[in-house]
Amino acid sequence: MKIINGKKISNDVLNEIKKHVDGRMKNRKKIPHLAAVLVGEDGPSQTYVNSKIRACERVGFNSSLFKFHDKITENELLNEITKINENKEIDGFIVQLPLPPHIDQEKILTQVSPDKDVDGFHPLNYGKMTLGIDTFLPATPAGIIELIKRYKIDLSGKRCLVIGRSQIVGRPISILLSQNKPHANATVTLAHSRSKDLNLLCKNSDIIITAIGIPEFLKSSMVSDNTKIIDVGISRIDDDSNSKGYKIVGDVDFEDFNQRDVMITPVPGGVGPMTIAMLLSNTLKACKLND
Amino acid sequence: MKIINGKKISNDVLNEIKKHVDGRMKNRKKIPHLAAVLVGEDGPSQTYVNSKIRACERVGFNSSLFKFHDKITENELLNEITKINENKEIDGFIVQLPLPPHIDQEKILTQVSPDKDVDGFHPLNYGKMTLGIDTFLPATPAGIIELIKRYKIDLSGKRCLVIGRSQIVGRPISILLSQNKPHANATVTLAHSRSKDLNLLCKNSDIIITAIGIPEFLKSSMVSDNTKIIDVGISRIDDDSNSKGYKIVGDVDFEDFNQRDVMITPVPGGVGPMTIAMLLSNTLKACKLND
Repeated sequence: MKIINGKKISNDVLNEIKKHVDGRMKNRKKIPHLAAVLVGEDGPSQTYVNSKIRACERVGFNSSLFKFHDKITENELLNEITKINENKEIDGFIVQLPLPPHIDQEKILTQVSPDKDVDGFHPLNYGKMTLGIDTFLPATPAGIIELIKRYKIDLSGKRCLVIGRSQIVGRPISILLSQNKPHANATVTLAHSRSKDLNLLCKNSDIIITAIGIPEFLKSSMVSDNTKIIDVGISRIDDDSNSKGYKIVGDVDFEDFNQRDVMITPVPGGVGPMTIAMLLSNTLKACKLND
Repeated sequence: MKIINGKKISNDVLNEIKKHVDGRMKNRKKIPHLAAVLVGEDGPSQTYVNSKIRACERVGFNSSLFKFHDKITENELLNEITKINENKEIDGFIVQLPLPPHIDQEKILTQVSPDKDVDGFHPLNYGKMTLGIDTFLPATPAGIIELIKRYKIDLSGKRCLVIGRSQIVGRPISILLSQNKPHANATVTLAHSRSKDLNLLCKNSDIIITAIGIPEFLKSSMVSDNTKIIDVGISRIDDDSNSKGYKIVGDVDFEDFNQRDVMITPVPGGVGPMTIAMLLSNTLKACKLND
């Protein structure tokens, strides 16, 4: 087994961004500023937002957190988003999902100015992505492509299986990897909950990207030698040997691949760190567009 | 071989649209109005536009043709499009492609008001389609879905191969058929010029949608029994037995499937007529949005 080290690549990307920021400071250009909108007290959401803000500090970005009570109305939130759209100090911002059920997520994401939509979830940016027009790519798929690029994994004409059709990972990575672009050009199959013959699909694939959140479902017996595996799943499972009482695992049964000739992203330390790095990379891009 | 009769289904759709228009006339509601923008003297483009206008007449739509010299500048064309966007009489319009090389197609298509973009090519509408949000679907993929629906072809969990990744057919149909929606839910593979093992991919598919424009490349030996085949290709090939000296064929070697237990769309008379019907259906939808 060979590890695809997302933590290391993420570090490399963050260092490169830091250099850019240092250069901008020297040249008295604007320092990139990322804002996050957080509604309610959801634990994991707070953790994600905090880690994004810490990453901003690390590369020298400015950052803001807009925190709202989970009783905020949809209209109030739309107004707050308009204010951030108009705030010239902020280059890009994200709305941390999920939102409370009384708020229409689609309406909120469409309210984000496409120029500041560093998550790439506005339909206009999503359409540009699908059409292959330069835009902000959603961070997780962008992180996967960065790993493929830096590990020089050749996808051209290869069979790529994406498992899971979520709008933040499965759908966009299936589109991006099948485009006629460098580090893409794969023959992509998008599998999901209704798919039959998943075992056969796995066996016939050169690269597997799994993003369904079923702990350790992908076993060694399901894949062929030389397969490259990108594991986007993050699940907690009970673990008495751990002082926390749980451990974080991916969709891949990692230990099961120990003796196999495959490349694989670990969880944690694979795709996760790349996601934050690419969000900052998008923010730098948004800032440069205003130069 | 069983024929999937696009000509018949297209007729059914057009008759349904005509009934709607008759109902609107009775109720003194606005009559749908489709406009077409045609630049230059390209023969096939003129033919396509003419057939769209004839179809409008058949269902009782109003229609307009805006014809421009192929020397029109990009800015002039952008201005003309703005005028059509602002023209309240026109509910929807299409810009017939291809445009002359000195005009940036992406810029022009992005100038079309998303509310009148009945071709569904504006990035905002393309993004909505990809995200599964209600919008104008590009006409050819919409026509394919209509055939699947009216022939009650069950795709759920089935393996679907799309050959060709064009932005007007292959890409959008690959997205639409893999969504969690009625008449979709397939496990879709998108193959293209770089794909290896196309024969194996074809053999393992329950439905094949081919849109590459290589005359008669799909042979009977490449597919399994019971396969459903949707042929989007349209090519001219020499044919001395025909008074015109040529005949129109698809990507499928139609005769070769004569004795096979497959369903298949003929060319002509399959997907082609559906495309125009769905364009008119989008125009009716645009008109209703203004009610």
